[in-house]
Amino acid sequence: MSNCELCSPRHEQLFWENQHFYLLDVSTEEFPCYFRLVSKKHVAEMSYLTPQERMLCWQILNHLETQILEVLKPTKVNFAQFGNVVPHLHWHIIARWENDAFFPECPWGKKQRVPTSFPAAQLLVIKDQLKQALATQLTSLYSV
Amino acid sequence: MSNCELCSPRHEQLFWENQHFYLLDVSTEEFPCYFRLVSKKHVAEMSYLTPQERMLCWQILNHLETQILEVLKPTKVNFAQFGNVVPHLHWHIIARWENDAFFPECPWGKKQRVPTSFPAAQLLVIKDQLKQALATQLTSLYSV
Repeated sequence: MSNCELCSPRHEQLFWENQHFYLLDVSTEEFPCYFRLVSKKHVAEMSYLTPQERMLCWQILNHLETQILEVLKPTKVNFAQFGNVVPHLHWHIIARWENDAFFPECPWGKKQRVPTSFPAAQLLVIKDQLKQALATQLTSLYSV
Repeated sequence: MSNCELCSPRHEQLFWENQHFYLLDVSTEEFPCYFRLVSKKHVAEMSYLTPQERMLCWQILNHLETQILEVLKPTKVNFAQFGNVVPHLHWHIIARWENDAFFPECPWGKKQRVPTSFPAAQLLVIKDQLKQALATQLTSLYSV
């Protein structure tokens, strides 16, 4: 749809795509590893994908979780799929650390603190390496 | 784990279970169709399930979404998996209506209004019928 912001991805954030999905890095100072997986089909719900697209979505989400846990070793990985404001299917994938600004609240909850030594510079370097690795891995696994 | 609240489900909320998952009705006045799907295995992340358990989890989540959409016709279905406070894998499944207290904010966002005619009494009746149907369907589909 021409007036849907997720039908026109902001390309500076896009770091992987295939025929069915694209992946954005929407990290912030507060959430230094925050990815968004977006369907290329303008639908609001997982049920409106084909079974094959839905399976692919789950597999990509799981690959992201596995790699984030292995490489960045966060305290937790958070997932959310709302779409109340922009009814175009997208998943939020957010690595969390116990000393981040909102922990243990969810990213939409109440801010808990102003971190003084988070995120570490090294974390941001490793996150950029992870993005490059993810793009290669996802193309290899799910290029169609 | 003996000190984990999700290892000891509150039975008055439980309306379905199989060997791997149980399902709670945690609806509130603000969110009249709010389910929580909980792993029986005390793990924090989807990656720590077996592939079979993970597939089962995805299938159950999809069945819930499909039935909620068909029977209750909400504006949107919201999903979240945080586990920052209770690191025992659980999914929030929340039907949303455009006149609910928080819409279009997510359920952890800023309250938008005090609804005057929501939820309708008929919605609560249909939600209870849905729960009974879901328990029967899920047992038939995923009893092992």
